[in-house]
Amino acid sequence: MSASTSVQVLRLGPSGAAERPDRVVTEAPLQVRVAPPAGPELDVAVTLRTPGHDTELAVGLLRSEGLLPSAAELGAVRAGADVVTVTLRRALGAQPAPRSFLASASCGACGKTSVSDIAVDTEPLGPGPVVAASVVVDLPERLRASQRVFERTGGLHAAGRFGPTGAAVVVREDVGRHNAVDKVIGAGVLAGGMPLADEVLVVSGRVSFEIVQKAAVAGLAVIVAVSAPSSLAVATARRLGLTLVGFVRDGSANVYTGRERIDLDA
Amino acid sequence: MSASTSVQVLRLGPSGAAERPDRVVTEAPLQVRVAPPAGPELDVAVTLRTPGHDTELAVGLLRSEGLLPSAAELGAVRAGADVVTVTLRRALGAQPAPRSFLASASCGACGKTSVSDIAVDTEPLGPGPVVAASVVVDLPERLRASQRVFERTGGLHAAGRFGPTGAAVVVREDVGRHNAVDKVIGAGVLAGGMPLADEVLVVSGRVSFEIVQKAAVAGLAVIVAVSAPSSLAVATARRLGLTLVGFVRDGSANVYTGRERIDLDA
Repeated sequence: MSASTSVQVLRLGPSGAAERPDRVVTEAPLQVRVAPPAGPELDVAVTLRTPGHDTELAVGLLRSEGLLPSAAELGAVRAGADVVTVTLRRALGAQPAPRSFLASASCGACGKTSVSDIAVDTEPLGPGPVVAASVVVDLPERLRASQRVFERTGGLHAAGRFGPTGAAVVVREDVGRHNAVDKVIGAGVLAGGMPLADEVLVVSGRVSFEIVQKAAVAGLAVIVAVSAPSSLAVATARRLGLTLVGFVRDGSANVYTGRERIDLDA
Repeated sequence: MSASTSVQVLRLGPSGAAERPDRVVTEAPLQVRVAPPAGPELDVAVTLRTPGHDTELAVGLLRSEGLLPSAAELGAVRAGADVVTVTLRRALGAQPAPRSFLASASCGACGKTSVSDIAVDTEPLGPGPVVAASVVVDLPERLRASQRVFERTGGLHAAGRFGPTGAAVVVREDVGRHNAVDKVIGAGVLAGGMPLADEVLVVSGRVSFEIVQKAAVAGLAVIVAVSAPSSLAVATARRLGLTLVGFVRDGSANVYTGRERIDLDA
């Protein structure tokens, strides 16, 4: 399946209406299934995603949700058209929390039924990288330069892992902002390189609580976002010791937390 | 709790770094609890939302998820600081679907574990309104004009219900795009005015599958969005008979489905 899909639209404009072909970003369900060392396979989630890098998405989602504590526990990963099966070398890392039948679609705590369910345990972060301010303000443009589908559809979020001097490690796009982050984290798990302690997570949009939590679980100590963070994103970044930068535009940026990782003189 | 929160930031810019106060959008968990006619109360969801209109959000979320088939089944609604309890006059309208313990945070099907769980049953849509093309291209600006918090924080999604001639009925903002839609739908349920068959849903961002489904469940036949829809949003709008308009900018717009509800001559 392609990352974008052809559609026919009626284009309204100042000079009237006209038929024309257009492209929209593809959104399709992916089933994530876990095969524990013993016992039956388990359907653990279905996510609406943009096809592509499905294996990374499935692995990253399991990692972000605390079900895959380390890359060493990852066995074979099998990808079908709309399903990815992840084999684990140990029993599921997280205890099943009680869930009720209603899964909220309102991101950030989806499907969780009590406030205490929201937080995933994280390991303490290491010192992380120090990034030059001149690199920080340039990272969103580097992310955009690495995007491929956006120009054609205008409908995609992007996330990327970058080295401390601004070199792109991996950039992924998805119709879901959380999916894009899970893909770049999953790519790190599959490469055996967790935690991602010397890298910077760059995201194309806003930063919610859950983006900060995903970064912390993956060991990413620095987040740079094009747009603004939420109050809970700022509070969580401060509590967990992350550096959070947002509103990066026209050579300027806001450092919300963790300024010790920004080199103001470089 | 306020819809925006004060923070102190280090502002990086071409002429150096400086401390300054800033505001970010508030994101905080809300527990949604259901009190059935018999039996214990049930925690059905926790959503990370921007405080404000919590009652509407809770009722709209239950409506969107198929748990509140009609306003007639709604009893008393009690709002606390971080919890809303919705009393139902009948047993829960939807059968509990099997859910596993992992709730994906990747919106659109959050917490659902199999592809068949994604769809919520919808009633057939009525004919709906006919909207002048000149009104359609103007609706996003009217939505922005009704937004209150965005200007201060840059971090909010907005959704609104508008009459067919472009008059705002209700506009709500939230850090979560799905929450903003649930709030305007919940406002309709609380006003006893479901289905919302003669109104237009206007959203500030992109249109995913789930936004289309929420509109259809609420009986809203026309969606106008500032940005692009996904492929599954277009396919679902076509299947359910909705009018879907996107990419509304500078007096132009794309009509993806349901052009019979757009009056091209007006």
